[in-house]
Amino acid sequence: MTPADRAQLALLLEVAGTPKPGNVDRERDLAGLRFEQFLAGAVGAREGLELAESGPVGEAFEAAVSGMADASGTNTQFGCLLLLTPLVRAAARARASAGDLTPDDVSAVVENTTVSDAASFYCAFEHADVAVQEPPADAEALDVRRGADAIPDLREQGVSLYDVMELSAERDANAHEWTTGFPRVFRAAERIEAADGPLADRAASAFLGLLTEAPDTLVVTQHGESVARDVMARAYDLRNAPREEVSAFADDLAERGVNPGTTADLTAAALYVALERGIAVEGGISTDSGVTVDE
Amino acid sequence: MTPADRAQLALLLEVAGTPKPGNVDRERDLAGLRFEQFLAGAVGAREGLELAESGPVGEAFEAAVSGMADASGTNTQFGCLLLLTPLVRAAARARASAGDLTPDDVSAVVENTTVSDAASFYCAFEHADVAVQEPPADAEALDVRRGADAIPDLREQGVSLYDVMELSAERDANAHEWTTGFPRVFRAAERIEAADGPLADRAASAFLGLLTEAPDTLVVTQHGESVARDVMARAYDLRNAPREEVSAFADDLAERGVNPGTTADLTAAALYVALERGIAVEGGISTDSGVTVDE
Repeated sequence: MTPADRAQLALLLEVAGTPKPGNVDRERDLAGLRFEQFLAGAVGAREGLELAESGPVGEAFEAAVSGMADASGTNTQFGCLLLLTPLVRAAARARASAGDLTPDDVSAVVENTTVSDAASFYCAFEHADVAVQEPPADAEALDVRRGADAIPDLREQGVSLYDVMELSAERDANAHEWTTGFPRVFRAAERIEAADGPLADRAASAFLGLLTEAPDTLVVTQHGESVARDVMARAYDLRNAPREEVSAFADDLAERGVNPGTTADLTAAALYVALERGIAVEGGISTDSGVTVDE
Repeated sequence: MTPADRAQLALLLEVAGTPKPGNVDRERDLAGLRFEQFLAGAVGAREGLELAESGPVGEAFEAAVSGMADASGTNTQFGCLLLLTPLVRAAARARASAGDLTPDDVSAVVENTTVSDAASFYCAFEHADVAVQEPPADAEALDVRRGADAIPDLREQGVSLYDVMELSAERDANAHEWTTGFPRVFRAAERIEAADGPLADRAASAFLGLLTEAPDTLVVTQHGESVARDVMARAYDLRNAPREEVSAFADDLAERGVNPGTTADLTAAALYVALERGIAVEGGISTDSGVTVDE
């Protein structure tokens, strides 16, 4: 498989993992957001993921988001793709020198992004409806909601995509990964590599673990800090709970419309890193995913 | 989306459709065969599906099967790919002349296959474990289980891939499609196009409809003609039944290890044709797939 293959598989395994409280998974659709839209989004993102193997990160990201939105009819995986694009680029480079994908590899990629990468990132917001917070008072010219209109300001200020991420790193978990060597992604990847069983089940476990670490950015944006802290605390209490209790939590969040989507982004990125580092889908009898029937 | 995109999406929508009695679906794994293996198979088949847009059908099919087997660790979609490969080729040609994909287009593709296509088809059996029936007594030299060893005999007899399919057309539903203009695939595609709702649900309905039409080839191969006829009759009785009754039938077939896999192949191909002819994944509130929660 190529890096683009693995990135596409990571998107598919992420959405298949269940229970993933508050998110679309193999067992749950959400209002206005269906499982099959995530399948289509993973197909549509493909061309951009292939471009990420060798092309500029910003252009690859915009192509991936545009293809995702065309195929799924909505925003299914914007945040996932923001993490995957530089990881795919870093993995393609690491493979060319026969090395494993490391945090240093992806740091080198993001630190070398340019104003053009930033411009493509802003254009990507014109393809999909993305929930974002208000920009800092001194950075209104760089509000991502301006889309391509912000490009002259980007060019005038000489702002790279890395710089854009730095502006949001304190309040956006994906931007924080970008500017700190993807620490939560690589730690979660290690847990996925060390675990046993179907990869979709490992994805669900990784999701719950990531949810205990920090307030989910999308939940903060949509419901405020205290709801996000409550979700984090409940996830912590459930970290060793039986599956039924996690499923009940999943149903509760879905009913309340509380969607920790940024934690799903981190999960997809962690799956990707683990796939690059050698885990693979395997056969055998499933014991805890879906309805399993022994012959 | 490209023809390869649509073919990949058809593979994903097919496995997501539920209930699909006797097959892996969004709600069911089978013994030794998991949902995530089908996701991986669809990713691995990608390169071959792209090749099918412009390259020889046999070579594209072998590449798709090889990639599928590498990624999934098993045979998830051999039959699907046998139908999809010439359909992708025909669609790419039809699009180049701005026409809709028709039975005549795909007939032209399969009728023009060569001995080299047949050789690649035989090589594909070396990548995956495929359940096949005994060959006719006068065609033992062309037994597909010989794999690449049969190639000298193919060349000596001047047998094209179309000729190989004609040898099996009476007892193999996929070979029958190949040699008769894909009639069941195109009829099922029309039903999918005419239906409403999520595409995965339409796939499940199309599967049940196809199951009523003829004994499933894989069930005949693994369990004999009478079991296959019984499955067909039960599907006929359930064609307007409530979802719970179809689900009970699905659980029963899974418990008995009765897998109408050839009917799933036809379903994937029908989804592909419908996608080529204009259906698309759409948003909106799901009412009958998975656990749906309204905000």
